[in-house]
Amino acid sequence: MSDETAPPLPPLKLRRLAIDAYGEVVAYLPRHSSLYRAADFQALSKVELVAGDKRLVAVLNIVERSDWLAPEEVGVCELGFRLLGLPDGSPVGVVQAPPAKSLDHVRRKIQGHELTRAELGEIIRDIADHRYAKTEIAAFLISSASFLSTEEVLGLTEAMAAAGSRMDWGDGMVVDKHCIGGIPGNRTSMIVVPIVAAHGLTIPKTSSRAITSPAGTADTMEVCARVDLGIEAMREVVKAEKGCLVWGGHVNLSPADDRLIAVERPLMSDTAEQMVASILSKKLAAGSRQIVIDIPVGPSGKVRDRAQAVRLKKLFEYVGDRIGLCLDVVIGDVLQPVGRGIGPALEARDVLKVLSNEADAPADLRDRALLLAGRILEFDPALRGGAGVVRAAELLASGEALEKFLRIVDAQGKPPAAVSLGKLRHEVRAPRDGTVAAIDCFRLSRIARLSGAPSDKGAGIDLMKKLGDTVEQGEPLYRIHACLAADFHFAVGTADEDSGMVIEGTR
Amino acid sequence: MSDETAPPLPPLKLRRLAIDAYGEVVAYLPRHSSLYRAADFQALSKVELVAGDKRLVAVLNIVERSDWLAPEEVGVCELGFRLLGLPDGSPVGVVQAPPAKSLDHVRRKIQGHELTRAELGEIIRDIADHRYAKTEIAAFLISSASFLSTEEVLGLTEAMAAAGSRMDWGDGMVVDKHCIGGIPGNRTSMIVVPIVAAHGLTIPKTSSRAITSPAGTADTMEVCARVDLGIEAMREVVKAEKGCLVWGGHVNLSPADDRLIAVERPLMSDTAEQMVASILSKKLAAGSRQIVIDIPVGPSGKVRDRAQAVRLKKLFEYVGDRIGLCLDVVIGDVLQPVGRGIGPALEARDVLKVLSNEADAPADLRDRALLLAGRILEFDPALRGGAGVVRAAELLASGEALEKFLRIVDAQGKPPAAVSLGKLRHEVRAPRDGTVAAIDCFRLSRIARLSGAPSDKGAGIDLMKKLGDTVEQGEPLYRIHACLAADFHFAVGTADEDSGMVIEGTR
Repeated sequence: MSDETAPPLPPLKLRRLAIDAYGEVVAYLPRHSSLYRAADFQALSKVELVAGDKRLVAVLNIVERSDWLAPEEVGVCELGFRLLGLPDGSPVGVVQAPPAKSLDHVRRKIQGHELTRAELGEIIRDIADHRYAKTEIAAFLISSASFLSTEEVLGLTEAMAAAGSRMDWGDGMVVDKHCIGGIPGNRTSMIVVPIVAAHGLTIPKTSSRAITSPAGTADTMEVCARVDLGIEAMREVVKAEKGCLVWGGHVNLSPADDRLIAVERPLMSDTAEQMVASILSKKLAAGSRQIVIDIPVGPSGKVRDRAQAVRLKKLFEYVGDRIGLCLDVVIGDVLQPVGRGIGPALEARDVLKVLSNEADAPADLRDRALLLAGRILEFDPALRGGAGVVRAAELLASGEALEKFLRIVDAQGKPPAAVSLGKLRHEVRAPRDGTVAAIDCFRLSRIARLSGAPSDKGAGIDLMKKLGDTVEQGEPLYRIHACLAADFHFAVGTADEDSGMVIEGTR
Repeated sequence: MSDETAPPLPPLKLRRLAIDAYGEVVAYLPRHSSLYRAADFQALSKVELVAGDKRLVAVLNIVERSDWLAPEEVGVCELGFRLLGLPDGSPVGVVQAPPAKSLDHVRRKIQGHELTRAELGEIIRDIADHRYAKTEIAAFLISSASFLSTEEVLGLTEAMAAAGSRMDWGDGMVVDKHCIGGIPGNRTSMIVVPIVAAHGLTIPKTSSRAITSPAGTADTMEVCARVDLGIEAMREVVKAEKGCLVWGGHVNLSPADDRLIAVERPLMSDTAEQMVASILSKKLAAGSRQIVIDIPVGPSGKVRDRAQAVRLKKLFEYVGDRIGLCLDVVIGDVLQPVGRGIGPALEARDVLKVLSNEADAPADLRDRALLLAGRILEFDPALRGGAGVVRAAELLASGEALEKFLRIVDAQGKPPAAVSLGKLRHEVRAPRDGTVAAIDCFRLSRIARLSGAPSDKGAGIDLMKKLGDTVEQGEPLYRIHACLAADFHFAVGTADEDSGMVIEGTR
């Protein structure tokens, strides 16, 4: 029926552009492409690159200068280049990227409809497969931030777990712990895992790196050992030592969750429902079945009051029950940073002091770790009810926990670099005589982050005073450590504005 | 109180990078910056560039190769370079960009709260000032897509109008028209404006360019005249001729709306509330007070049924009343494209045929234009009630409208280029004998867009058959025009899949 047949299109040449767009997949077309007109793609601001059976959806940017990108080339950022998996210079076609079909479900969610598990599954698969631009991920996050039914939380959890790798540990009991985060210095996992593993339970712990905080458990553990183990290496460590402390990002347990978090954090949109789906999907994928969930409650934590904590606990329990996870949710008041250090090296120091039973080990970190370890040990049917915390304390006091920790460190391998504390130092001092009446965890996290943590493992804050301590005017409250002049500048400037500590006068 | 003073930071050198990120402001830091560590900024994925009193918030990308960006440089995209307004090589500092304070209001909106006018004002100002990343704009759009109270629509409208330029036409009556869009070929403004101006009313019409459609009125008008006039030039034209047809993007009436639309369209999130605020904010800023709003209703238009149209009408009227606009909202069934052409040059041809009273001028385009012009003329107190459409028809038939159009064209200036119809042509033919039973406006718009419209003004679709026409098998239904091989390829391929026209057998 055609008057003319559409001429076949010669492809463009793929060009790897060394740009990291923080998780966004970006393609670059020259303004004066030999083949396409950039403006034609403007409507959706997305394109699809096609080469044989390989396809890649990307956000489009236009390069104006032809000395950067030749008219017959199409560029992709580092992530896109990796996902496409083709050599530089490969022939690649460019087509309009129709919006992912699952965006129709997102639109229905925006209109207030409840989504089915199948619909949530399609959304999550598209997100995991990098078919959503960040704006589209934001649309999904916000649409589900205002309301998610418990059925939807369940569907989301299962969909996120299904989109990644899945670990299977056979028939034995597999335990785990997870803290919802928000409290600086709360590095209990590095104490709990060796205690539990020393007792003989299997605890394949994966942890996150910090995104907005000054340290994640993976960052702190990396001061002592390698943490970027693949699934097989992780399995070996657990087989030999019963426990591990590795970075979850490398074992790809929930790639959709990793993408959601990358958009969620800058937006600071992190509802109870999203948190439960995020955490439990990773636990489901990691193959753990008995899990202690730690919900610290405090004025500057993620959960501000008991009522909110109880609602969160019930949501965890509801979803956990439905997906076959046995959860023990621990709610505890935490009014200040745990331990004395904030930042990887300083936190690792605290952890080692506790494991080594040193006299000046931070008691609050030890007590929280023993409480949580005890709750996990209670999963062991052989243990007498209520004996968990006693057993945990024994394993710590006897040095068995330290020995286990060192064996795990040894099994995981050497850390990538030796760490020393940041040489740029500044002491923040008490403006008056009095008592430490309040500590703002947000503020201290921000200052520690600005000081360079976790990029510089030796950067952060070392607390010299904690709640209730008496201070004299001019006495140091905490010390800032930094490695880089710019970081030091930002951190000190921010601490000078507001130290994050309230000193009330004694009179 | 400091042990050491924070060392002053030597600034980086600003480097203009010739990249167009489609409305996103992007800054590029070298991975191995001499001064900063890219990873430190990862948490928020945004930075703020600072130079004296100039500040620019930008989404951060990292450039891995130092031969693209030197360690002492910081790159910005074209838009960022323009906004910053500094010469290439200027010293610029980089700091963490704290999230805009107004994002707290967005978060409250997500939680279901109603926002005050002051809060909406802060959000809109930050968006207009390029302080929101696209993900943040998406968050605001989606949070307000699920529910906006009429008070909020009002607040949003006023805030958007206040964020841009404002035109004042003195005491005389200033009329305008606006169509909510969605129907291809519905180019009534180019007929209505000359009729109304010929009658003697002031009608300073600004129009949009197409974003996702094959032509906006500004694109079609640009076939005949220059449309990118600044505010002063527009004022001159209106002073001389009573009317104009210029591109609204150049007169900066609602910069926040321009940014919202850039994110909204790819997400295809465009609720009644957002539409009303978007349209009325621009009218308020343009200084029009009496406005006819055209709501076409049809199965493939933006508004699908009468009930939806009536709700939209009432929302327009409510907000219009509160902000001092006198609105006449016209609801009309439109089941197919208006006129015969889809795409700037083809639509301009239809308009000129109507203005010239040619025998084969599309009757539907003429009738719709006369109806709308008549409703606007009714605003004239000197005109006898009900006489508007008769007067409009007189002005068209007498040639006064054509003369006025040519004078407006002359006043606005020559178009940027002479336009001829795309030379690549393909006729889509009837698969069987029968009658045209349905025409899918979405599909035809998409095909016309793929053919290169509006980038190529000569590209688009020329309809040979419309609803109710009888056709024989093999007879042309429409002709696709394209200028570029790639476009031709996409458009013909899409039309071959599904022509967008349903032919029902006669038997």
